Amino acid sequence: MTRTAAQWCELLGGTLEGDGSRLVLRPASIENAGEGTISFIADRKYQSFAYQSEAAALIVPRDLSFDRPVRPALIRVDHPYVSFAQVLEHFNSFEEPKPGIHPSAIVADSAQVDPSAYIGPLTVIGAHAFIAAGARIHALSYVGDHCKIGEQTVLFPSVVLYPGVQIGRRCVIHASTVVGSDGFGFAPLKDGSYRKIPQQGSVIIEDDVEIGANCAIDRGTIGATIIRQGAKLDNLIQVAHNVEIGAHTVIAAQAGIAGSTRIGDHCQIGGQAGIVGHLTIAPYSRINAQSGVTKSIIQPGKAVTGSPAFDYAAALRAQSLARQLPLLVKRLEELEQQVKELQKIHSEEKLT
Amino acid sequence: MTRTAAQWCELLGGTLEGDGSRLVLRPASIENAGEGTISFIADRKYQSFAYQSEAAALIVPRDLSFDRPVRPALIRVDHPYVSFAQVLEHFNSFEEPKPGIHPSAIVADSAQVDPSAYIGPLTVIGAHAFIAAGARIHALSYVGDHCKIGEQTVLFPSVVLYPGVQIGRRCVIHASTVVGSDGFGFAPLKDGSYRKIPQQGSVIIEDDVEIGANCAIDRGTIGATIIRQGAKLDNLIQVAHNVEIGAHTVIAAQAGIAGSTRIGDHCQIGGQAGIVGHLTIAPYSRINAQSGVTKSIIQPGKAVTGSPAFDYAAALRAQSLARQLPLLVKRLEELEQQVKELQKIHSEEKLT
Amino acid sequence: MTRTAAQWCELLGGTLEGDGSRLVLRPASIENAGEGTISFIADRKYQSFAYQSEAAALIVPRDLSFDRPVRPALIRVDHPYVSFAQVLEHFNSFEEPKPGIHPSAIVADSAQVDPSAYIGPLTVIGAHAFIAAGARIHALSYVGDHCKIGEQTVLFPSVVLYPGVQIGRRCVIHASTVVGSDGFGFAPLKDGSYRKIPQQGSVIIEDDVEIGANCAIDRGTIGATIIRQGAKLDNLIQVAHNVEIGAHTVIAAQAGIAGSTRIGDHCQIGGQAGIVGHLTIAPYSRINAQSGVTKSIIQPGKAVTGSPAFDYAAALRAQSLARQLPLLVKRLEELEQQVKELQKIHSEEKLT
Repeated sequence: MTRTAAQWCELLGGTLEGDGSRLVLRPASIENAGEGTISFIADRKYQSFAYQSEAAALIVPRDLSFDRPVRPALIRVDHPYVSFAQVLEHFNSFEEPKPGIHPSAIVADSAQVDPSAYIGPLTVIGAHAFIAAGARIHALSYVGDHCKIGEQTVLFPSVVLYPGVQIGRRCVIHASTVVGSDGFGFAPLKDGSYRKIPQQGSVIIEDDVEIGANCAIDRGTIGATIIRQGAKLDNLIQVAHNVEIGAHTVIAAQAGIAGSTRIGDHCQIGGQAGIVGHLTIAPYSRINAQSGVTKSIIQPGKAVTGSPAFDYAAALRAQSLARQLPLLVKRLEELEQQVKELQKIHSEEKLT
Repeated sequence: MTRTAAQWCELLGGTLEGDGSRLVLRPASIENAGEGTISFIADRKYQSFAYQSEAAALIVPRDLSFDRPVRPALIRVDHPYVSFAQVLEHFNSFEEPKPGIHPSAIVADSAQVDPSAYIGPLTVIGAHAFIAAGARIHALSYVGDHCKIGEQTVLFPSVVLYPGVQIGRRCVIHASTVVGSDGFGFAPLKDGSYRKIPQQGSVIIEDDVEIGANCAIDRGTIGATIIRQGAKLDNLIQVAHNVEIGAHTVIAAQAGIAGSTRIGDHCQIGGQAGIVGHLTIAPYSRINAQSGVTKSIIQPGKAVTGSPAFDYAAALRAQSLARQLPLLVKRLEELEQQVKELQKIHSEEKLT
Repeated sequence: MTRTAAQWCELLGGTLEGDGSRLVLRPASIENAGEGTISFIADRKYQSFAYQSEAAALIVPRDLSFDRPVRPALIRVDHPYVSFAQVLEHFNSFEEPKPGIHPSAIVADSAQVDPSAYIGPLTVIGAHAFIAAGARIHALSYVGDHCKIGEQTVLFPSVVLYPGVQIGRRCVIHASTVVGSDGFGFAPLKDGSYRKIPQQGSVIIEDDVEIGANCAIDRGTIGATIIRQGAKLDNLIQVAHNVEIGAHTVIAAQAGIAGSTRIGDHCQIGGQAGIVGHLTIAPYSRINAQSGVTKSIIQPGKAVTGSPAFDYAAALRAQSLARQLPLLVKRLEELEQQVKELQKIHSEEKLT
């Protein structure tokens, strides 16, 4: 079912420019968009690639103008990146596993598994667990007692869900991620040792959430750690007990969120950022990579950076000046010298 | 076996204030302490929650005074957080697995497993491994050859112990954590490539240690990486080869400790902090989140912050001034202007 | 097969000094180099250990001079650390598993497994996977469909390879590491939610690569994420989609590299460092621990530090001055006072 550039254009609801008759064999990144490929340009700064490209078709913004002619057919759309996602979906070659329970899986008698779900080899499904229609639990994963997995949700290999974790529909949890581990709670005793605070809460993950590989999402102490609808988490992320992550918030790899912090909807959190416990982060906040957030962010839509983090623009200015400190110190020293000389003149004047 | 507020008070060795007859059905956080709950206030700043609470009982410090009457019975104790831990332990609803070896486990003939231990489904227990009384090895975990697991120690699912790892009594290792992986040791060769240094040491974990999910604890090159009694590690922590972590030291998530560094007893290390190799960190040191420690800390009880880290109070002052750099530069510029004018006056005076 | 100091010297191609007749029973670190041990000193600063050592032999640089006599035989070589690696290899006591497929492994009919390979218990080998001669896939690992594993490559327990991952010869992947998880790509939609960009590329790992425990290496969106020959990665490292890591580059624990960044050959990247996406890092770059690299590094061999990172020496100077900010502000205040006084004198002079 190979399509021409023109056919792709129609499928994507775009406007065609140039020769739509060429065949599209596969998608490619713009840097590698050779013959027979379809690619996209979302940003003017990658425009120069178009001039050398032998691609069959390029998906571009409606208003992107080119100074010189380009060889590929142009498919003009509102959101090139989204349209390219559609193209990629068509070319998806990963085979979905067939429904059914692999004979090597260990499934508790009291577990309820929908016949349309897939339970991979060497998985463990605990007592009273519920696996909804179309869910796919890949090999070597562990679903604890009383867990609930929503429709079409995918657990990649070696995921561990502690007992009682609830996951919504159409979620994706990548390999080796742990959901529901004990929160880090210890009460100091007089002798300097610690007494463990039992962690009896749970984790609730709403619909359409994606979580990367090797993350750790702790259960609440009492009550739940909550990840709201549509949130996207990258790899190696730490979510502590009783944290709440807002809907459609995206968090880049290796970020960490300490206990009981509530992050609003539509936030963007950069890689390796850290947020201390018991804070409230307003919706639409943008937290730069490697930032250390130590105070609540009250005003929605603010951007912060630095460790400790503060206003993005001000922080960049301060960071830039910090780099110039050797120069500033030199200016200070020159001033000191000059003032000393002025003082000397005055004292001499007085003497005369 | 539902208890009244008064019965809980007796159990906790507290002093009762108010109506002790109400039934306690479940524990709750102070924010959610509705009817039939027991909760606690450890810090004066959460006091205001008490006035609106419908809880049956609140555990509070002996000396906490309230300006207004509160409805819940007050249970006054020395350490409310510790007492609340006791309450939570009573309400623990997680089922402990029954002793015995699951038929799907692969246990080496030469392994020694106490009859009171639990060996979960799809686990692997290596040759000459020793699993003591009451230990619980959950599903899909791997215990390498010659490992020793002490009494009552728990390995959650998908834990990996490389051969020769020794774990004490009453330890808890959370899911997907790796203990005993090779240290990161490579000798540079003339051609720019590297030769691996074989990592032949081991890991020794003493009693009462808890380690979070998805951590990596490397084996020593020669000799052991050691985690001493009662230390508590959060999730996603890196412990390099030949590190030693002192007794009752607590380390927050995503911190990393480089090779051969020795951390004293009773230290507190914040999240995402990093400590470079071959250092000595004195007992009772407090290392702030995201700090980068590049020098040994000799004096016990010091607090440090920043990257590179130095004295906490001084670093906070310097960080605060760094934020004010734009203002300081402005002051510097004004001074330069003023001095220039003064110099001008002088040169004019000279001319006259 | 216990050797004397003299025999070790011959084996290592060194020059002997002192009594070569003593027996070497085991290797030791220089701090613990007691009777019957062989150890090494690569750096002059550890020299003092030699004077107290009872070791049978010490491997030392050819040109290292001692002020006082030492008891151990000295084995003088060009590269003591490399020679010590050879010694350790001889003492290696870890048993290699025997070739063959464990009966509990789930191996697809279409998978090709060399008879000399080892497939451990409770592993899963997907359809059309290829496992070359001498490869060792340890227990509980998952090798997805169409993966290729080169000769002598080792996967430690619980490693997950998504479908289509290619790994070269003599590689080592430590426990619980995930290779081939989806890149973090989501296109924002008008309603504030996100549409997943299908991740259809792969991961290519060349020969002699070592990757630590609990890492996450994402597959390319289209095209491959590539780790070139001889690169060494520590634990808990994030490698995003379409990243390329150069040959013989070493990366310390908990570092993270964002999407599409290309790192040159022979770089050194410190622990917890972060590199943003779409950058190019020149060969032989040295990126200090905890650095945040936000711009491409064009010139080979440069060292950077800080977040945001810049020139190492300049950054150290600026950091050192930043610490002195309280002092600098005091000097500024004094100047302001002095200038004010000078101005006052002038205005008074004018009045008179």
